[in-house]
Amino acid sequence: MNTEEEVNDFVHHGHQEYLTHLSIDSVIFGYHEQQLKILLLKWKGYDGWGLPGGFIKKREPLSDAAYRILKERTNLSNLFLQQFYVFGDSPYRVKERSPHEFRDKFNLQVEDDNWLFKRTLAIGYFALVDYSKVIVQTDFFTESYRWWEVDAIPPLLFDHNDAVDKALLTLRLQIYHQPIGYNLLPEKFTLPEIHSLYETILSKELDQRNFAKKLVTLGLIQKLDERRSIGAHRSPYLYQFVKEKYEQALQEGIVHTY
Amino acid sequence: MNTEEEVNDFVHHGHQEYLTHLSIDSVIFGYHEQQLKILLLKWKGYDGWGLPGGFIKKREPLSDAAYRILKERTNLSNLFLQQFYVFGDSPYRVKERSPHEFRDKFNLQVEDDNWLFKRTLAIGYFALVDYSKVIVQTDFFTESYRWWEVDAIPPLLFDHNDAVDKALLTLRLQIYHQPIGYNLLPEKFTLPEIHSLYETILSKELDQRNFAKKLVTLGLIQKLDERRSIGAHRSPYLYQFVKEKYEQALQEGIVHTY
Repeated sequence: MNTEEEVNDFVHHGHQEYLTHLSIDSVIFGYHEQQLKILLLKWKGYDGWGLPGGFIKKREPLSDAAYRILKERTNLSNLFLQQFYVFGDSPYRVKERSPHEFRDKFNLQVEDDNWLFKRTLAIGYFALVDYSKVIVQTDFFTESYRWWEVDAIPPLLFDHNDAVDKALLTLRLQIYHQPIGYNLLPEKFTLPEIHSLYETILSKELDQRNFAKKLVTLGLIQKLDERRSIGAHRSPYLYQFVKEKYEQALQEGIVHTY
Repeated sequence: MNTEEEVNDFVHHGHQEYLTHLSIDSVIFGYHEQQLKILLLKWKGYDGWGLPGGFIKKREPLSDAAYRILKERTNLSNLFLQQFYVFGDSPYRVKERSPHEFRDKFNLQVEDDNWLFKRTLAIGYFALVDYSKVIVQTDFFTESYRWWEVDAIPPLLFDHNDAVDKALLTLRLQIYHQPIGYNLLPEKFTLPEIHSLYETILSKELDQRNFAKKLVTLGLIQKLDERRSIGAHRSPYLYQFVKEKYEQALQEGIVHTY
C-alpha cells in the first residue's frame, strides 16, 4: 500500500475486504550472530515506534492472514510464526480510537464512523527470522524501520510494549518445550552455535555440556560424522536437526520430567 | 437468556451490544478426586454436544468478558481462567454460517444477513474448576449439560474438538512452567493429593519423591508443622501453596534447567 489511491481505497472501502474489530500485530524477532532484535516501524507523523501489523480478509483463514502480512512486510515466507495472545484489555483496545489524529497525521479525509476507528482487538503473532536476510518494506503509513535490541526497546505506540513483553516471555518459556532454530542456524551447525542461540534468546548462561546432552537425548539434534575446521587443532563436530522429531516436538511439545 | 423475549432481543439487537465477528469458547476442565472432565452442553435440536461460549460487549475488556461468560454459566467467580488460542482456520470459521439451520432448530425468525451468521472467530479460554462445586446453568439454546471424561470426548459440533485438543495440550505443557492447583485442592493438602492432581492432568505417572522435591525446591509449596490423621500410624504432613511465589510463577513462568 504505497500510492495515495491505494490508501484512500483501503480507508474508505477496506471494511468490505477485511474483518472489522480485529487486527494482527507481529512481533518479529531477528537473530543473527548472538544478537536478538525486534523489528519496529516508525509511523509518519508520530514520534514513537510501533509493531508491524495488518488486517484479516473476510474469508481468509487466520493463519494465512498472519503469513501474508509478514511476507508483505519482510518478503520472507518460510518462517517460524506463532500466535501468542489476543490483546483486548488495555483502554486503547476497549475505547474506540479517535479519527482526528489520523486526519491530522496523514491528511486523509475520514468520517467519524470509519471502520478503522472502531474498537479493534489485536491477535499477536511472533516470528523468528535471521535479520541479516530480511529486506523490510515500508509503506504510506511508515517512514522507516529499525531492528532494536530486545533489552533496549523504547516506549512504543498504543499497547505495543505489552505485546513485546508477552511475546518475549512466551518465547522464553516455550523454548523449554518447543524446538527452535531450524531457520536461524546453518543446516549443519556446531554445538557452540546452537548453544549461543539459546543463550541469546534466554538472556542467560546455560551449562554447555548439559544443554547439548539434553538436545541429543531428546532426539532433536544428531551428531554428524563430519567436522568443521575453524583453525589449528580446532575442528568441532557438526550437528543437524532431526526434521521428523523436530516437527513432532513442534506439534506435541517436549515434555520435561518433574 | 431464557425467555423468548430475551432471545429475540439478542438475535435482532445483539449486534448493537456485542462485537461482531468474535466470540469466546470456554473449555472448562473440572477436577475432582482423581478425575479430569470437561463441561459440554447439548444444544436443542442438534444431535451433538458443544462447548459453552458467548460474546464480548462493545466496550468490555476481553478478559472481563471471559470471566462474565464463565460466571453466567457456572456461577463461579474465583477461577483459574486463561486464553489459549484463537480459532480462525477451519472452514467453519472461514465461511459465513447458514441461518437456515438456525431457523429450523429454534423456530426463530432471522434474516440472512443477521449478525450471528457472519464469519466468527473464537477466542479459546480454558478454566480449571472443582466440578463437584459447580451448578451449571442451561438456557434457551441448550437443553442439558454433562461432565465428560477427557479421554472419552464425543465428536463435537463445529470445530470444538480442535479447541478441546488444543486446550488439553496447552494445559499439559503449561503445568511444567506454571503452577496449578490453588482452587482445586483444599487449603492444606498432603503430597499424595497434589501428586494425584498432577498425574491426573498429565495422564501419566510421576515419580512421587522427585515431584514433591521439585515443588518444594521451586518454593511453590511449603511443609507445615501439622499432620492429617488418616488412620492408624498414618498421619502425613500437610503442605500449602506459597501464595506470593505462586502468583509470581503464574506471571513469569517457572524456568526449568536445560
